[in-house]
Amino acid sequence: MRNIKLVIEYDGSRYDGWQRLKDSEQTIQGKIEKVLNEMTGSSVEIIGSGRTDAGVHAKNQIANFKTKSSMSIRDIHNYMNHYLPQDIVVKEVKEVSDRFHSRYNAQKKKYTYYVWNHRIPSAFQRKYSYYFPETLDLQRMEAAANQLLGTHDFIGFSSVKKAKKSTVRTIEEITIVQNNHMLEFSFIGDGFLHNMIRILMGTLLEIGTREKDISCIDEIFTSKTRAMAGKTAPAQGLFLEEVYY
Amino acid sequence: MRNIKLVIEYDGSRYDGWQRLKDSEQTIQGKIEKVLNEMTGSSVEIIGSGRTDAGVHAKNQIANFKTKSSMSIRDIHNYMNHYLPQDIVVKEVKEVSDRFHSRYNAQKKKYTYYVWNHRIPSAFQRKYSYYFPETLDLQRMEAAANQLLGTHDFIGFSSVKKAKKSTVRTIEEITIVQNNHMLEFSFIGDGFLHNMIRILMGTLLEIGTREKDISCIDEIFTSKTRAMAGKTAPAQGLFLEEVYY
Repeated sequence: MRNIKLVIEYDGSRYDGWQRLKDSEQTIQGKIEKVLNEMTGSSVEIIGSGRTDAGVHAKNQIANFKTKSSMSIRDIHNYMNHYLPQDIVVKEVKEVSDRFHSRYNAQKKKYTYYVWNHRIPSAFQRKYSYYFPETLDLQRMEAAANQLLGTHDFIGFSSVKKAKKSTVRTIEEITIVQNNHMLEFSFIGDGFLHNMIRILMGTLLEIGTREKDISCIDEIFTSKTRAMAGKTAPAQGLFLEEVYY
Repeated sequence: MRNIKLVIEYDGSRYDGWQRLKDSEQTIQGKIEKVLNEMTGSSVEIIGSGRTDAGVHAKNQIANFKTKSSMSIRDIHNYMNHYLPQDIVVKEVKEVSDRFHSRYNAQKKKYTYYVWNHRIPSAFQRKYSYYFPETLDLQRMEAAANQLLGTHDFIGFSSVKKAKKSTVRTIEEITIVQNNHMLEFSFIGDGFLHNMIRILMGTLLEIGTREKDISCIDEIFTSKTRAMAGKTAPAQGLFLEEVYY
């Protein structure tokens, strides 16, 4: 069996997220597997580096699949982009070692959350950012972001109800870049719990508007209480940017 | 009567163009007038700086309308953005002199045409650019663009069949900017005929791929024959960027 690695970009707007679901045809994984099933004539399962939720986008999602097909890498690439919908694009196809596993081998991930921070919304950025017109104190947000760095139990910043596995994660880096009216919040870490970045963002935004104090971060780490954190920021601002191996 | 000037941004993807049509609800002008009719309780006609075709976008379309309404400028602005669909955004509202007319007073316009020139298409730029994977000779295209500058009869580069009015126009400036995989072609001129920029772009692209020779430009000016020019490049790459008064 050959092991094929894919780099995939997708506009998540129309989809119910990455993971194939029984009752939905509208998943990224489902769309890609359908094309690969037709291409190879047998049932293919693709393994993603991780799930993304409904409405979340990806610039470089990584996935791999095993196949007996003898098609050339170039033909696989052309076939996939020809038959996939235009909002899912395969950027790279590569044959890799049999041992490569997109999920198990992922060391770190980078997500970026885009906030359109302007009184006037944007017709072009509306699907790729969160329109948030209120004034934000970026210095407060940076101080709060510093409190998030390092290794913590992030369960209070997640939708995880009962943790079967560890909810301890390490955030290595958070950067905030102001690009005209767009604020770009990038998070690099060894993994992120369900909804974690969107809840971190909701919390940072409430700190930015002075609804919450910076000290709430430590309180949520200690109390592990979801209700103390901010709202879950909407999906359309979130992009999976990179997976590091 | 007050005279109100609007600066409008729109994603043209879902629309049948700017101009209100009898048989289509899906025009930018129609959507804006509907909101203004409800806002003022009387029938409002807005005058745009010019039409844009189905699928064409605008970053700063200018329009004006007359009204007896005594609403404040701020309230008009908020009302419009509240009730307009999210892909039409009013960026500015201003009360102007009674003599201001969006179309008659427009001196110059700037349009930009975006070409995604890369082997791999883009999931995010697909609606805002023309995916054109072939290799382009930018130096040839710049030389051809230089031939287009100045005052010419552009009828051969337009969809105008029988000209009732003059088809002579002046192009003051054409710039070509390469921004990673995106090529941005900007045109500043005193006015553009129907489909003129899209046909100029189709011609420039065929010169860039060496299908056509640069000398074809002069031949089309002389012969005034649409059939000698390139294909009409697709609408989704075209943006009305600025109107100068």
